[in-house]
Order: sequence, then C-alpha cells, then structure tokens
Amino acid sequence: HGDCPLSRLLRHLLTARRSLDICLFAFSSPQLGRAVRLLHRRGVRVRIVTDAQYMGLQGSQIGLLRQAGIQVRHDQESGYMHHKFAVVDGRMLITGSLNWTTQAIQNNRENVLVTEDVEYVQPFLDEFERIWEKYNPINYKFF
Amino acid sequence: HGDCPLSRLLRHLLTARRSLDICLFAFSSPQLGRAVRLLHRRGVRVRIVTDAQYMGLQGSQIGLLRQAGIQVRHDQESGYMHHKFAVVDGRMLITGSLNWTTQAIQNNRENVLVTEDVEYVQPFLDEFERIWEKYNPINYKFF
Repeated sequence: HGDCPLSRLLRHLLTARRSLDICLFAFSSPQLGRAVRLLHRRGVRVRIVTDAQYMGLQGSQIGLLRQAGIQVRHDQESGYMHHKFAVVDGRMLITGSLNWTTQAIQNNRENVLVTEDVEYVQPFLDEFERIWEKYNPINYKFF
Repeated sequence: HGDCPLSRLLRHLLTARRSLDICLFAFSSPQLGRAVRLLHRRGVRVRIVTDAQYMGLQGSQIGLLRQAGIQVRHDQESGYMHHKFAVVDGRMLITGSLNWTTQAIQNNRENVLVTEDVEYVQPFLDEFERIWEKYNPINYKFF
C-alpha cells in the first residue's frame, strides 16, 4: 500500500534533482533499480559504489544500471563494502540495515534512518567521496 | 590503537549504568562479548535480540552470553532479524551497517552512527520493545 517501506524509500529517492550517491552492499530490487534509472534519464547525476563479491550474483541490478550509462564503482578488497546508504542532492541521508533487495524489503526486520541533519549527513558524504576516489579504476591494483 | 572503531564502540558501551538493549543480526566478537558480560556483572540490565539462523553458527557469542545469565530472544520468522543497533541507558543510540563480528570490524567497510538525539533514539527504543515482546517465548508458534 501507499506507505510501505518500499514506497517511502522510493518517495525519498524521487525527490532527487541534481545528484544521487548510492553506497550499497547489495542492490537487486527491480523497483529501486527502475527508480534509479529514471532519475538518471531525468539528468540527475547518479553514482553507485557496491561490493565486488555481491555485484555479480544473480538478480543484481548493477549490470542493468551500468547498461543504462550509470557510473558504478566497486571495492577491490577481500572484506565487504558493507555500507547501506544513499545521499540525495547532498542533502538527505538514507541509511540503516536495509540492503536494496526484495528479500530484505519484504521479509526481513530492518531499519532505515532518514535525516537532513548536516551533522549526520556530512560524514556519509565524506565517506562516499573517499571511497569513490579509492575505488576509481585508475587506482586498481592487479593481484 | 586507542581510537580504532572497536575501541570507540567499547567506550560507548561501557558508559552504560542502567540498561543495554542490543538488537543484532550477528554477534561473534569476543571483545564485545566480554564487554557485555562485564556490564551484566556490574548490574546493568542487558537484553539481546538476535537472528535465529545466525545465533547457532560457529563463533557466535550468544551461547556464552546466555550462560552468563543474560536474557536473549530471537526471531521466529523465515526472514532475517537484520537490525544492527544498541541503545545505552535508553539514551544513546548506536546503529549502522556493522554487525558485531571480528570480520566486520577488521576487514569490512562499515558505518556506525552514534546519537543521543531523542528524535532518532526513540523509534529504535520503540522497535526494541516491540520485537522484545513479539519474540517472547510465551508467544512462540510451533511450526
């Protein structure tokens, strides 16, 4: 119905006008994938950081997002890139335990915290810029 | 060293004087397990909610915590109890992507948000009380 967690999340994302920075361990929800591609087509600058191990799994949206022309970077470490957050227009932080998967949205007990409080948003913005640069393919080490 | 993520987390936890409510998908860190048992011995009221599937895995601290006399409840659903938060003295919320595992602390890229802002703390307190009651063994359905 109109106020399920997925609808709330979609409503927040679809307020994006300029930028959407997404940092997600797992992204396989088709509805959220469609929303992100829609924002990209509207001219919003979308950037995605994800986990290298998870991105290749069946059902991952990452391939479709890349095909749509969206920039995606991934970790190159043995540990997980385990964040689950997004920042809309550098202004609104969406963070919590929720991966963007249908399993998590429908079956799990999860939390999502949404805030425009700069004190909380800024460290996540800083972390995004830090790992966006760290995972730049130019910096890949082959091992 | 003194200000690694584990030290910061321990420092926050060890401020508990009256209560510690923990809601964690995975809890296997021996250091954090010791800290929680220490608080229990000091007379802090510790309550733990965890995930039924994960709690039996090798390395889980849940057995040791129960042996120490700490109350633990778990979900009885097919989905995951995927929260990763704690509330200290009903006052300080510690939440984020981090499960309390050595793997996550040492190898993953994670976030932990710490706040005493009632606006953010209260919904997590409410969620804790809700699932603490929901997972009361009295309410078990056998299936």
